[in-house]
Amino acid sequence: MVSNTAVTSGDFSLNDLPGAGRMDVVCRCVNSGLLLSHGIRKNTRMLLLLLGPPTPPKLIRIDGDSVKYLGPDERNIGGLLKKALGQEISSECVRSSPGISVSKKTFEEVMKDVYETHSQVLYLHESGNDVRKMNFFKDVCFILGDQMGLTEEQERIVEKYTHGKMCVSPLSLHGDHCITIVHNELDRREVLC
Amino acid sequence: MVSNTAVTSGDFSLNDLPGAGRMDVVCRCVNSGLLLSHGIRKNTRMLLLLLGPPTPPKLIRIDGDSVKYLGPDERNIGGLLKKALGQEISSECVRSSPGISVSKKTFEEVMKDVYETHSQVLYLHESGNDVRKMNFFKDVCFILGDQMGLTEEQERIVEKYTHGKMCVSPLSLHGDHCITIVHNELDRREVLC
Repeated sequence: MVSNTAVTSGDFSLNDLPGAGRMDVVCRCVNSGLLLSHGIRKNTRMLLLLLGPPTPPKLIRIDGDSVKYLGPDERNIGGLLKKALGQEISSECVRSSPGISVSKKTFEEVMKDVYETHSQVLYLHESGNDVRKMNFFKDVCFILGDQMGLTEEQERIVEKYTHGKMCVSPLSLHGDHCITIVHNELDRREVLC
Repeated sequence: MVSNTAVTSGDFSLNDLPGAGRMDVVCRCVNSGLLLSHGIRKNTRMLLLLLGPPTPPKLIRIDGDSVKYLGPDERNIGGLLKKALGQEISSECVRSSPGISVSKKTFEEVMKDVYETHSQVLYLHESGNDVRKMNFFKDVCFILGDQMGLTEEQERIVEKYTHGKMCVSPLSLHGDHCITIVHNELDRREVLC
């Protein structure tokens, strides 16, 4: 998930996640990406590329198979992201809490990396093919923009490093709702099970 | 949506929605029930039956066609619910903000009422029929429990006032994710459009 607005330092207030460059949007995507009713999607990894001020880029990686202390509410998730963003990135990748690490990677570096390490990379976009008609590979990766979508330049990079676009609804939905619908389709086909 | 734990007075802290009897769960259901990416589902109404302490029952009604000031983040929605729960219920039904009103109705009164005013009432439950195989009427109503589900007594009442059970996923999901999946199915069929 890419956010062009979410702040990239840890000094934001958990009482105003929308004011932190719409960190609330990021938190909800983490919720729908990783949480089941009574547990965590161990087969899922989330990469959050945050590009807002003051020190972009920051890439937060959350591994479903090892993350701990992850609750469903925005404030809880915001707290984990705040901790990650508060780390000094002295090496390639710094662990901020179990299953969560943070690094500095540009948009293109991340895209290139996921393209090279997954056999299928799909961009969630309203003009894409219907999720219900797609064939999925077991290590599929989905690219999702924030509330404003990706910039034209980012879309040009995405085009280079994806295998196509996919849409989930005839209506324009919030990102976290899109993630829920994608998971539902994969769950039904047991793609990741 | 029925919550057996969510508090029924307005004196809870927006900094601790989970501590208010899991008001965060209710907030997320409102989000997925009513919000589109750039707007509100005007064809949708939410009834939130809150049964936690100190003064249950409280029924909050949110009308998609007239609600205002509804943002997607939990804290914003929590603020609107807090205002509704802070009203003194002097008459049958008190308006707390545009499109939001609150009243005192028991579980059975609400169930009886929705049963009498809708041609189809479905209970979201893991043992139900698949949402993708259901036929829907235009004025369908869905019953959803909270993070703990309904009590046995409530389920007996539900059985009396519903036309069947419906499930959305092979996995056990959070309530708000279930709502998103139901909406997606209805959107695809344009049931409410």
